[in-house]
Amino acid sequence: MKKVGIVMGSDSDLPVIRKATDTLDSFGIPYEVHIYSAHRTPEQARDFALGAADNGFGAIIAAAGMAAHLAGAIAANTVLPVIGIPCKSTTLDGIDALLSTVQMPSGIPVATVAINGGVNAALLCAQILAVEDPELRGKLEAKREKDSAAVLAKDSAVMDRLKEDNN
Amino acid sequence: MKKVGIVMGSDSDLPVIRKATDTLDSFGIPYEVHIYSAHRTPEQARDFALGAADNGFGAIIAAAGMAAHLAGAIAANTVLPVIGIPCKSTTLDGIDALLSTVQMPSGIPVATVAINGGVNAALLCAQILAVEDPELRGKLEAKREKDSAAVLAKDSAVMDRLKEDNN
Amino acid sequence: MKKVGIVMGSDSDLPVIRKATDTLDSFGIPYEVHIYSAHRTPEQARDFALGAADNGFGAIIAAAGMAAHLAGAIAANTVLPVIGIPCKSTTLDGIDALLSTVQMPSGIPVATVAINGGVNAALLCAQILAVEDPELRGKLEAKREKDSAAVLAKDSAVMDRLKEDNN
Amino acid sequence: MKKVGIVMGSDSDLPVIRKATDTLDSFGIPYEVHIYSAHRTPEQARDFALGAADNGFGAIIAAAGMAAHLAGAIAANTVLPVIGIPCKSTTLDGIDALLSTVQMPSGIPVATVAINGGVNAALLCAQILAVEDPELRGKLEAKREKDSAAVLAKDSAVMDRLKEDNN
Amino acid sequence: MKKVGIVMGSDSDLPVIRKATDTLDSFGIPYEVHIYSAHRTPEQARDFALGAADNGFGAIIAAAGMAAHLAGAIAANTVLPVIGIPCKSTTLDGIDALLSTVQMPSGIPVATVAINGGVNAALLCAQILAVEDPELRGKLEAKREKDSAAVLAKDSAVMDRLKEDNN
Amino acid sequence: MKKVGIVMGSDSDLPVIRKATDTLDSFGIPYEVHIYSAHRTPEQARDFALGAADNGFGAIIAAAGMAAHLAGAIAANTVLPVIGIPCKSTTLDGIDALLSTVQMPSGIPVATVAINGGVNAALLCAQILAVEDPELRGKLEAKREKDSAAVLAKDSAVMDRLKEDNN
Amino acid sequence: MKKVGIVMGSDSDLPVIRKATDTLDSFGIPYEVHIYSAHRTPEQARDFALGAADNGFGAIIAAAGMAAHLAGAIAANTVLPVIGIPCKSTTLDGIDALLSTVQMPSGIPVATVAINGGVNAALLCAQILAVEDPELRGKLEAKREKDSAAVLAKDSAVMDRLKEDNN
Amino acid sequence: MKKVGIVMGSDSDLPVIRKATDTLDSFGIPYEVHIYSAHRTPEQARDFALGAADNGFGAIIAAAGMAAHLAGAIAANTVLPVIGIPCKSTTLDGIDALLSTVQMPSGIPVATVAINGGVNAALLCAQILAVEDPELRGKLEAKREKDSAAVLAKDSAVMDRLKEDNN
Repeated sequence: MKKVGIVMGSDSDLPVIRKATDTLDSFGIPYEVHIYSAHRTPEQARDFALGAADNGFGAIIAAAGMAAHLAGAIAANTVLPVIGIPCKSTTLDGIDALLSTVQMPSGIPVATVAINGGVNAALLCAQILAVEDPELRGKLEAKREKDSAAVLAKDSAVMDRLKEDNN
Repeated sequence: MKKVGIVMGSDSDLPVIRKATDTLDSFGIPYEVHIYSAHRTPEQARDFALGAADNGFGAIIAAAGMAAHLAGAIAANTVLPVIGIPCKSTTLDGIDALLSTVQMPSGIPVATVAINGGVNAALLCAQILAVEDPELRGKLEAKREKDSAAVLAKDSAVMDRLKEDNN
Repeated sequence: MKKVGIVMGSDSDLPVIRKATDTLDSFGIPYEVHIYSAHRTPEQARDFALGAADNGFGAIIAAAGMAAHLAGAIAANTVLPVIGIPCKSTTLDGIDALLSTVQMPSGIPVATVAINGGVNAALLCAQILAVEDPELRGKLEAKREKDSAAVLAKDSAVMDRLKEDNN
Repeated sequence: MKKVGIVMGSDSDLPVIRKATDTLDSFGIPYEVHIYSAHRTPEQARDFALGAADNGFGAIIAAAGMAAHLAGAIAANTVLPVIGIPCKSTTLDGIDALLSTVQMPSGIPVATVAINGGVNAALLCAQILAVEDPELRGKLEAKREKDSAAVLAKDSAVMDRLKEDNN
Repeated sequence: MKKVGIVMGSDSDLPVIRKATDTLDSFGIPYEVHIYSAHRTPEQARDFALGAADNGFGAIIAAAGMAAHLAGAIAANTVLPVIGIPCKSTTLDGIDALLSTVQMPSGIPVATVAINGGVNAALLCAQILAVEDPELRGKLEAKREKDSAAVLAKDSAVMDRLKEDNN
Repeated sequence: MKKVGIVMGSDSDLPVIRKATDTLDSFGIPYEVHIYSAHRTPEQARDFALGAADNGFGAIIAAAGMAAHLAGAIAANTVLPVIGIPCKSTTLDGIDALLSTVQMPSGIPVATVAINGGVNAALLCAQILAVEDPELRGKLEAKREKDSAAVLAKDSAVMDRLKEDNN
Repeated sequence: MKKVGIVMGSDSDLPVIRKATDTLDSFGIPYEVHIYSAHRTPEQARDFALGAADNGFGAIIAAAGMAAHLAGAIAANTVLPVIGIPCKSTTLDGIDALLSTVQMPSGIPVATVAINGGVNAALLCAQILAVEDPELRGKLEAKREKDSAAVLAKDSAVMDRLKEDNN
Repeated sequence: MKKVGIVMGSDSDLPVIRKATDTLDSFGIPYEVHIYSAHRTPEQARDFALGAADNGFGAIIAAAGMAAHLAGAIAANTVLPVIGIPCKSTTLDGIDALLSTVQMPSGIPVATVAINGGVNAALLCAQILAVEDPELRGKLEAKREKDSAAVLAKDSAVMDRLKEDNN
């Protein structure tokens, strides 16, 4: 199975990334994690992207905050699908990272997920790898059913929770 | 080759969708276009999504404006990758559609591109389909080279353009 | 009396919903609470909406955060009045949920209240049910008078509070 | 049948209001239209609201732009449901009117629709009046079916439109 | 000397108002404080405004949060200068109150200060009252000099503070 | 009678200022208009402010766009009331000018009106000058009545306008 | 004299760049203009930046719109001062480009000017080159005086313009 | 070597300034720090700017929050490069300071860095001073290499950190 490449711009993004790796682990999808900054280590970020297709990667996740250029910098150097996670930093509540990630010019797309959306970035990779992998698709469908059942279990208990909380 | 499904919420989104279909045409990727509203025709949107994997689709593009729920509604009913295009409408400059498309809760990702980003939505589909299709990847790389060459051709001419414009 | 249906997208919205149920309790309005996600349990959300009118509901409250599609998904499947509560989540201070809830396209309205506005959502339901129910209208008017008196009581004490605080 | 009261803050809001009256006309719902400013004619706005329930109104639409206080000023003086339409003016693209209308404090709800959302404001009134009026509900359901059919008709033609446009 | 009227929409705004009353106290300007809600006690807010000029007030401060209509509602009922303080509440960081206060339509101005700007609202009242009161103007100029001296005293110490902090 | 000083940062703000001077003319209030930039002619802006009280001014209007510092720069050099008009320029729809004008730090207030709010800036000056001038107050009250009557005249005609437009 | 490097991401930015080159021309500062995209020609953008110091450049201007990474990508590959111009595109009024340009992480600064601020970007380069060049500083001071005189000339004429326009 | 002038509007900005002085210390660049408010001590701010070039300064950093006029006020009185740091205050997350600092009108540039960007403001000064100082440029390049190495060291450890955290 192709691997997922995960690149974060700074180790402050680790909590977001861990949600992604936990999700990939749950599907048995192999991955490789790197800390490469678009600005402090541009060469390594570029080389990783340039070699990704040949090195067995099928999709790349890039997470960064502020003027979040990492996903775009990766995407500029590979035609693999690149998923961007805008990370919230200490000002502006993540809107800077969101706009810097999603508003890519024509020609170089970045598949952007919600601010701090580590789980969904991993799921998107799984969905991409599942396009030609029925077994993985089955796992994704099973997770959907499990998530759905979890909601319904909470639904069954909600009237009791409302009553209990009142006592 | 797997098809790309394209769904728009209203025919006012056609100019954005045409940029996507032109791009898919340039790669020879088959597609099917529908106008389904998440709110006015929820059944049809759902049925399209539920059947998409079995009907030969490999990825789905969903374009909508305002409280743009279409991509999320499609994504809730398929584990195929869903690309969301937020469309600018007559107020708020597209920020409503962008947030409604990208800020999906954990479990149901939407791969969001820029506001009105029809070309990049199509390119993202091509990149997804190319993960297991070296020939298509080759075409994507060729387009990158062509785009790059076009920029460099403009670069060569820019000093002359600056001078001409002055006269 | 017709019931109020209350649907929340996640149990993290319970504190907002409790403000709504407390308000409905104070008017003696019956209600039913559910946790249904527009994305994780779309069938249940739809079925609830489709059957709501026949099942004795007179209005529906839907609360959700982020790309808050729940109220719109309910509204697409019933012609009962649907009140949307945008819920603040961990990023963007609720503006994403507000725009996703209020900016509905023509044809499918959602009556949107303030971010986290659980009390007002319940009051709006009471006002709707009171259109043909003079007794309930009387209760609403009595609450208005009580609220007004509470403000005026605080007004009477404010000069003393200002002085006390200084000592 | 109870009437719908429609109040706008300025005659510059007439194009938005006309969409509302056209919609009410299509359902045969009677209405009365006024231009009352929350700031320039506060007495008239208040008196209209205070007397609305006794004067046969079942719901009130209030449309205003900028620091749009009209809906709130009406709502403060009646327990009828008040629907607020934020109107876009020449700066800020309507976000000022939206926040001024929707962010009402606890106790006085305003059911807010999208910026310039005249059609949906009228539909919401119709839905409110239909809670105890099965015939009107039937008309609302018929409109939904008609809207849905219109979308599907466009859907049938979309592939042809895409081809035609290319020629 | 004419009094300053101070009205707040809720006692949650007291900390902001205290900054205003402390400032007025420092100038020996008399004032009267009220808690009147534009929505829960519209009559009292209106009556206060209507009578303000005759009751010896020279300017009015109105503080409110969310869809902050209070200043506008006061201004609609008096031609005294009305100063609006937008108050930050639990969502949206005060931008809703700011736009609801400042974006007043032509004809009814509200002199808006910064979010939570209690001190400046009081200073503005003092400046207004000082237009025809040279003694008060002298006090305002003295405060400016004192504020300026306080900044310069901090300036003198700043290099030492930077060094100390390092040890 | 004291004069109103009017300062604009650029002659592109003239249309906004004209609304202010027309309004002052209607009250017979004398004024003096200047084009002084906070950045290009800081000395003149400062000197104007420093001398304003002694030169017979009772209030100052300052209009500027973008990083609109002019009102603040004037306010820093006088204790006369300073009214700020944020002007919309070619980007950001005036929000930059609004925040630059209204978010003044403690100590130096600017009485801010709506974006491009030339009429209200002039009215605010009139209201300030009227605090000790019953005749001017009478004129302000008369204008209020005239504005109110104009709204009510439009109200009387609105049902006819709606019918006519349909034919 | 050292040259100024000017890089734009697309030829749609030419009108902004022309304002910069006209300004540099007026100071006699040599420059070189390129169209290099951070995403479509990342190698050329990088190579230009890596060689800039050795090739006689003293400062670099980079202009781009949307998710404007160009200035950051240049800055990551040189320690020359890099001035970023965020360019307004067809959606979001330039706020995306502004945040993408200015919110750079620690270590790699971009000196950001206003949206579409071509003149100021050039002036900033001139100011940087003037730090060690008294003659150029003199030219900058002369331009300041000229700009100031132009404002004052408009100021002298403004009362007449106001009167003329009225006739 | 020329000095860097550092001016902050209030001592609440000291934590941001300390990041700047620590950075300048690391390069051995001399500096002078002042607390001058654009509004409370406009004369001192102006005099500092007017004399800066003659007093041996090569660049000036100005940090302020809210309606952050300080950098612009300094820039209006010197042709030295002025770097603006927008500081986050208690409301609006810094967007007010950012727009007030960066959106300068043509003629008076402010080189703006990220909100609270003390380190980058200092680096920008160092880069400006290094244009004609190869030794300082060498230090800047060395810091880049050190920063890059620090990222790569974290990169080497990241897979282990992910594993450890799981235990």
